Amino acid sequence: MTVTSREEAKARDNADPLRAMGKLFELPKGVIYLDGNSLGPPPRGVHTRLRRAVEKEWAGDLIKSWNDADWINLPITCGRKIAKIIGADDDEVLVCDSVSVNIFKIASALLKTHPGALGYEDDEFPTDGYILEGLSAITGAPLQCLAPGAAEQAFTSGVRVLVKSAVHYKTGEAADIAAWEKEAGNAGAAIIWDLSHAAGVISLALKARGARYAVGCGYKFLNGGPGAPAYLFIHQDAAETLMQPLCGWMGHASPFDFSRGYRPAKGVKRFACGTPPVLSLSALDAALDIFESIDIADLERKARALGDLFVDQTKDLGLRLLSPVSGPARGAHVSLCHEHGYEIVQALIEHGVIGDFRAPDIMRFGFSPAFLTYENIWDAAGIFRGVMQSGEWRDPRFTVRKHVT
Amino acid sequence: MTVTSREEAKARDNADPLRAMGKLFELPKGVIYLDGNSLGPPPRGVHTRLRRAVEKEWAGDLIKSWNDADWINLPITCGRKIAKIIGADDDEVLVCDSVSVNIFKIASALLKTHPGALGYEDDEFPTDGYILEGLSAITGAPLQCLAPGAAEQAFTSGVRVLVKSAVHYKTGEAADIAAWEKEAGNAGAAIIWDLSHAAGVISLALKARGARYAVGCGYKFLNGGPGAPAYLFIHQDAAETLMQPLCGWMGHASPFDFSRGYRPAKGVKRFACGTPPVLSLSALDAALDIFESIDIADLERKARALGDLFVDQTKDLGLRLLSPVSGPARGAHVSLCHEHGYEIVQALIEHGVIGDFRAPDIMRFGFSPAFLTYENIWDAAGIFRGVMQSGEWRDPRFTVRKHVT
Repeated sequence: MTVTSREEAKARDNADPLRAMGKLFELPKGVIYLDGNSLGPPPRGVHTRLRRAVEKEWAGDLIKSWNDADWINLPITCGRKIAKIIGADDDEVLVCDSVSVNIFKIASALLKTHPGALGYEDDEFPTDGYILEGLSAITGAPLQCLAPGAAEQAFTSGVRVLVKSAVHYKTGEAADIAAWEKEAGNAGAAIIWDLSHAAGVISLALKARGARYAVGCGYKFLNGGPGAPAYLFIHQDAAETLMQPLCGWMGHASPFDFSRGYRPAKGVKRFACGTPPVLSLSALDAALDIFESIDIADLERKARALGDLFVDQTKDLGLRLLSPVSGPARGAHVSLCHEHGYEIVQALIEHGVIGDFRAPDIMRFGFSPAFLTYENIWDAAGIFRGVMQSGEWRDPRFTVRKHVT
Repeated sequence: MTVTSREEAKARDNADPLRAMGKLFELPKGVIYLDGNSLGPPPRGVHTRLRRAVEKEWAGDLIKSWNDADWINLPITCGRKIAKIIGADDDEVLVCDSVSVNIFKIASALLKTHPGALGYEDDEFPTDGYILEGLSAITGAPLQCLAPGAAEQAFTSGVRVLVKSAVHYKTGEAADIAAWEKEAGNAGAAIIWDLSHAAGVISLALKARGARYAVGCGYKFLNGGPGAPAYLFIHQDAAETLMQPLCGWMGHASPFDFSRGYRPAKGVKRFACGTPPVLSLSALDAALDIFESIDIADLERKARALGDLFVDQTKDLGLRLLSPVSGPARGAHVSLCHEHGYEIVQALIEHGVIGDFRAPDIMRFGFSPAFLTYENIWDAAGIFRGVMQSGEWRDPRFTVRKHVT
């Protein structure tokens, strides 16, 4: 169903089964936030939760809160909420560390059970490759940077541990997880899925599709806060066979025995390392509550419809579409290219439409179905058209470069 | 100057140059908190800062805060505050990850420049040894668990990378950093100091004493919040020679170029890995402000005087003192042993005196000079005497075991 007017956009909003979710967020007035793919905004419950974590749990109950507020189990309780979102079982997901650290842990462990080369695709989110470089340097395992391509080609050159994004950070392309897992299975290889740009907006159904290992960040579509702790998923059949080298005390079978000699905890908990950052973890935990009563299929449907609308309404602006045009081949963000993409993004921001820029020429726009409306997208596309037609992005004030993550 | 009455304790408080610091904390009424060595309480400034981080920076300014609130530089700006506390130079300290992860990073990097065995002392905080086990397993580097002892013996058996606590987590014993560094230098070995139980309460003067590498946690005497991010120190002469394997994008020379191939940032920044947990980091950053106008020598003097008073006032209770009796051989906590230490600690907590228990029989009491008074210690010792004399700790309700970190 194509939307061809603001009224039709509003009508879609009125029929939106997720309409009530928007009220869970408090966004600044005059802002259309198309950057939930980089940093999700806080659901309202986060404020209350963090205040409680600081004022009652930390300041009031002090050390006792490790037990009484169950801080000690937050990595698992929080992991259960994510398990539901990504299609894993309870106790297969642990919230801990960063995506980079978690890739290192899982890839190191898999090198023992899947000896061979480490691999990643060229053009993958850089940190995924950097980490494999570091692991290769320390273990001597060969490392291959593969041409992005079809699953059947990836494993022919000896790669046995592959890191691959479920949704590509630049193109927004969604991988066919089941097809990749089938090829990996045939080759005796393992895939570590990076879910950072996928979790919370598309139906990943990891276990149903045969995935066994994954990592992801908490601060994008999961809205867990800037630099929120990451998570990892290990299929329960595999967890007990894996030993990872970042074996800190929180992954020990009995951390509070303070005993010499590492004994890994059962299951996914053996992938924990140091003491978790409870404040950031509490924010993520509260943010995840908005997913509790939501059908992920509804989120996916809306995210793609918002993206389709944006693609359709910007198709005549002379920009190159880097993302799949529509359908299940795309996640929840759309990338458009222009030589002066940086300046255009700055001009859009001045008009309240916040997207982001990725070198060399990519403008990314994320469609968080949790808080965006069809009307938002209609308006954002209209502003975009205005900026391109007026050429105002050429103003020198838009050329000053800053880092934006 | 011995304190022999509550009035004398009060007099010491009146003469205390750090007296005003106590007002920076808001502790629960009726509590004498002797567990700042495990989890420091929040300075008042933390509440305001976290509210700003969540409500203005995250909710209000969203993605822009990576620049406008300078989130991107928090690991370094926060590191500068710690550098001052531990006696390092600006830009030699980076706040990141956990102590466990940071030990792994530095020890891996040092294995290349200091080939030989990894080592730690038996009875060291367990995670330090666990991490070296993991590193040994993945690299094949030999691992030695040494008998705790004098510096001159540590390096004779081939250890070239030693992890050692500046203040021992159980005994409170403070190491002679300069003496250890001298021996390490003679042997061509490197020491990674674990400052977790030392920073913020004793004058470490790392550079003056020849230390080159250190890690530490942010949540003990630095009061940065539960599971606060950790930090690492790398002497500027060494930083450029070291390559660490957890080389995530935040340690890249140009993270926002999104380029293939890892190129390490200059200096200590190359030890960064993934995206930092900004909320937890903001809390730590605010907590560190209380140290800005403080002379660490004053903190050390008071911490030890409080400990001396406690040792003196509990010496007749039939408990074995595990810590050095007094003086520069001790950090800012004191450990007393009793077969029923667990129960005794629970009984003390019921009376508002919060210490902690470490298996098998150790009661630890920390003397945070920032917020404790001599009167507090006098009173705590009095309560301790009451609990021991009444034998009330024998009540069955005190025997239920919980995890406390």
